[in-house]
Amino acid sequence: MCRLAAYLGPELRLEKLLIEPEHSLVKQSWAPREMLEAKLNADGYGYGWYDPEGNPLRYRYTMPIWTDPNLSQLGRGLSSDTWVAVVRSATTDIPINTVNTMPYVDEKYHFLHNGYINHFSRTMRSCLRRELNPEFEDAIEGNTDSEHLFMLFKQIMWEKKTEDPAMALQELFHRLKKWLKDERALLNILIAQSGKFWVMRSAINGNCPSLYYTVNPPQYPDAVLVASEPLTDAGDWTEVPPQTLFVVEHNGEPQHISL
Amino acid sequence: MCRLAAYLGPELRLEKLLIEPEHSLVKQSWAPREMLEAKLNADGYGYGWYDPEGNPLRYRYTMPIWTDPNLSQLGRGLSSDTWVAVVRSATTDIPINTVNTMPYVDEKYHFLHNGYINHFSRTMRSCLRRELNPEFEDAIEGNTDSEHLFMLFKQIMWEKKTEDPAMALQELFHRLKKWLKDERALLNILIAQSGKFWVMRSAINGNCPSLYYTVNPPQYPDAVLVASEPLTDAGDWTEVPPQTLFVVEHNGEPQHISL
Amino acid sequence: MCRLAAYLGPELRLEKLLIEPEHSLVKQSWAPREMLEAKLNADGYGYGWYDPEGNPLRYRYTMPIWTDPNLSQLGRGLSSDTWVAVVRSATTDIPINTVNTMPYVDEKYHFLHNGYINHFSRTMRSCLRRELNPEFEDAIEGNTDSEHLFMLFKQIMWEKKTEDPAMALQELFHRLKKWLKDERALLNILIAQSGKFWVMRSAINGNCPSLYYTVNPPQYPDAVLVASEPLTDAGDWTEVPPQTLFVVEHNGEPQHISL
Amino acid sequence: MCRLAAYLGPELRLEKLLIEPEHSLVKQSWAPREMLEAKLNADGYGYGWYDPEGNPLRYRYTMPIWTDPNLSQLGRGLSSDTWVAVVRSATTDIPINTVNTMPYVDEKYHFLHNGYINHFSRTMRSCLRRELNPEFEDAIEGNTDSEHLFMLFKQIMWEKKTEDPAMALQELFHRLKKWLKDERALLNILIAQSGKFWVMRSAINGNCPSLYYTVNPPQYPDAVLVASEPLTDAGDWTEVPPQTLFVVEHNGEPQHISL
Repeated sequence: MCRLAAYLGPELRLEKLLIEPEHSLVKQSWAPREMLEAKLNADGYGYGWYDPEGNPLRYRYTMPIWTDPNLSQLGRGLSSDTWVAVVRSATTDIPINTVNTMPYVDEKYHFLHNGYINHFSRTMRSCLRRELNPEFEDAIEGNTDSEHLFMLFKQIMWEKKTEDPAMALQELFHRLKKWLKDERALLNILIAQSGKFWVMRSAINGNCPSLYYTVNPPQYPDAVLVASEPLTDAGDWTEVPPQTLFVVEHNGEPQHISL
Repeated sequence: MCRLAAYLGPELRLEKLLIEPEHSLVKQSWAPREMLEAKLNADGYGYGWYDPEGNPLRYRYTMPIWTDPNLSQLGRGLSSDTWVAVVRSATTDIPINTVNTMPYVDEKYHFLHNGYINHFSRTMRSCLRRELNPEFEDAIEGNTDSEHLFMLFKQIMWEKKTEDPAMALQELFHRLKKWLKDERALLNILIAQSGKFWVMRSAINGNCPSLYYTVNPPQYPDAVLVASEPLTDAGDWTEVPPQTLFVVEHNGEPQHISL
Repeated sequence: MCRLAAYLGPELRLEKLLIEPEHSLVKQSWAPREMLEAKLNADGYGYGWYDPEGNPLRYRYTMPIWTDPNLSQLGRGLSSDTWVAVVRSATTDIPINTVNTMPYVDEKYHFLHNGYINHFSRTMRSCLRRELNPEFEDAIEGNTDSEHLFMLFKQIMWEKKTEDPAMALQELFHRLKKWLKDERALLNILIAQSGKFWVMRSAINGNCPSLYYTVNPPQYPDAVLVASEPLTDAGDWTEVPPQTLFVVEHNGEPQHISL
Repeated sequence: MCRLAAYLGPELRLEKLLIEPEHSLVKQSWAPREMLEAKLNADGYGYGWYDPEGNPLRYRYTMPIWTDPNLSQLGRGLSSDTWVAVVRSATTDIPINTVNTMPYVDEKYHFLHNGYINHFSRTMRSCLRRELNPEFEDAIEGNTDSEHLFMLFKQIMWEKKTEDPAMALQELFHRLKKWLKDERALLNILIAQSGKFWVMRSAINGNCPSLYYTVNPPQYPDAVLVASEPLTDAGDWTEVPPQTLFVVEHNGEPQHISL
């Protein structure tokens, strides 16, 4: 489990997203309000942004976000018009290390997952790995359910020869539903590219983790934000309906798509 | 690649093995003498020993051994009649983290591997994982070739219903030889249980990493030591012949077994 | 601030003190019950014990105790008849690193402090350093108030040519009282040597942090334990009265001394 | 001891300075060519740059530079027209931690020191601390000689009511010379602000560490670079004469000042 936040809008210093809001991810790391099963998000954190050519970049740290001596410095030194970020609460028995810390990334997308597949390594890991093409299977560096879901997402994009992450997320959801039978999966997923997000709030045999968005809030004019918990007291944070998928672009209301 | 050392004899403080010898593993971490392809062993280290009931215990650290603030303290505080230890030089692209740091361990054995399988994740990982029973496949926590070899070793022990690690190491060597064709594998492996080692010095399509042993040397009376490089100036350190397997027990010359 | 625990009795595995109690220090690191000003103790931890010659040894780790991969292993591998341990909640602006992590130690004693001196670096650090003999001043490795208090303790032992830590703690308390005027200092201090503790629960211009002891409790027969919060549900944990000093030895009720 | 590098010129991605040169700081961390007393620079690294308002920013990491998972990412994501960087080889007994990792920084300057004061904590630390105003003395976070030198530099700037770091460096050198008598001090120091460096190559009772500069080299057109060892094979790297002080600005040869 974890808490995530994402920003799309005019160029913004990282600290404006990560540190300064009243209920920032730093705050959510030790005092989250809407976690279903954990009390802290102290098992590392990460964020993603883009270089001038649109290639995804990321920063990952394996200890509590509040102990990172570089946070305030990079918070002032990095600016972007697209940010994704996450504070982690590791599932029991999944090691805390860099390769298990989000965001995951390929040459185009950032991938964030808030949730888990219950008993993942016992129930689904080997069968999922067998689905994967060798190049996707070999690219797995850690052992989280989330990284495997990212590779399944990539596999589906490749199989369907599509450039549309929304279609791939729908297909991913339906495949998991077929496979999982009675097992629980919480599946809040955010796919990002420079200037665009695809966001799914969903669960199978369980309750969706919390998820909100806000458009053009006072502290972030002309921007859209998505977050597990409202970052600011002001701003109309709207709860994302369960079992939905939506697309976020600059300057506009998120577009909902049925799952 | 890495440098390893192992001790069998009267109860010994850890510092006597790890720190005090003229060419200790601490020294070998920054000035190894016989490394084939690396200059340092600064990507973490680990050691293994046994609790009074004979269960394997281990300590792992992911930074250079000389930076560990607990080394001198545990060096004085831990004593055992069986020690295994390793300083790591990570293969490029294999993450440095705890789960990728040896020794590997199950409920009975420590497993150390000095060497590598060339292009492991591309050439052999998926096929090897398909060989494995789900319980062994699911137990894999990291992504080193070494941990996969440990699981293959366990799979063979299970398949052959044997309690003899020597037989399993022979079988492991021959399976790898069949699979690998032209690919290079360096395979110095040490299996330990309380009071006994099984050691293999071998390679497929390449040269074996260095390996030595000594029996009853001046600094360790009544003991047997095995190490990638002689730890002490004194003592008749004997080179282990390439492509051999041998068994080490208290009080006696190692017993050689043909591969 | 922090939470501490100490054990004196028959040889005990570390895990019996640190991990297994219902309200162990692992538990207190993320769910303390009686902290005055913090919510977590997730800024590292440490413990101390003795080698067979009675020399103090220590282990220190700078991340949350629950993330230490070596905790369960050393918990089973280390046994002692005297244990001291602490989980840390760092004072704002004091760096989280090994040299700032307790226990502090010299050639004879472990030193633990639960509390703080308010605005220490601004109000008292330089004057305290000027009090110190060069050999004590030079031995300071970090920048906590606690380490400075340890050096003041050593200075007093040296000045008074005493071997009695109780006398030195009394003198330390009275000197601080004179210096501090209106500034707040919370001063729960535990001095340990092999087989003996000196414990002070005190505060100047503020309220003492919580502190308890128990003699011969069901889970630790023939032992005495001291802890910031009761470790077990069973056992008569007695609150230490504020502003007292007491001495703990094997087999007996703590001896109270007035401050 | 350490190896340092600094860049002044057109906006440059960090990777162009830190990673890509043939003899980059990454390379110098495990294979330096001109170190007087160490074989590695594997005890952490750091770099400094400026935010759009000209405030100094820094990044520090306490493990070997080649193990930092964020190096390649920030190498692509950070650009600046002024860079300072250092890979550290810790003096024995000085802890490896963030507060002991350069660059040091205040509200205006970065401070880098390559060298050491022999037996610093024994011979000079207390007397130097007594020189310092409380606000400078209290600002010391770690325990390196380098951080103390930075505070002495600030003290001198304040005493002399000067805005000229060159004058303060001269004064610092002469004060140290008077204090040190027979003790050795190696004093390569680089002070940076946005767009300008003050660099001193000097030693007292010993030999200066190596130091070079180059103006408008092929790989960095219109730039000036200063480094402990030439970063590139091409480019006329000129050795800085011992016991000199010079000022570097954009577009021009460094201006030498006698010490």
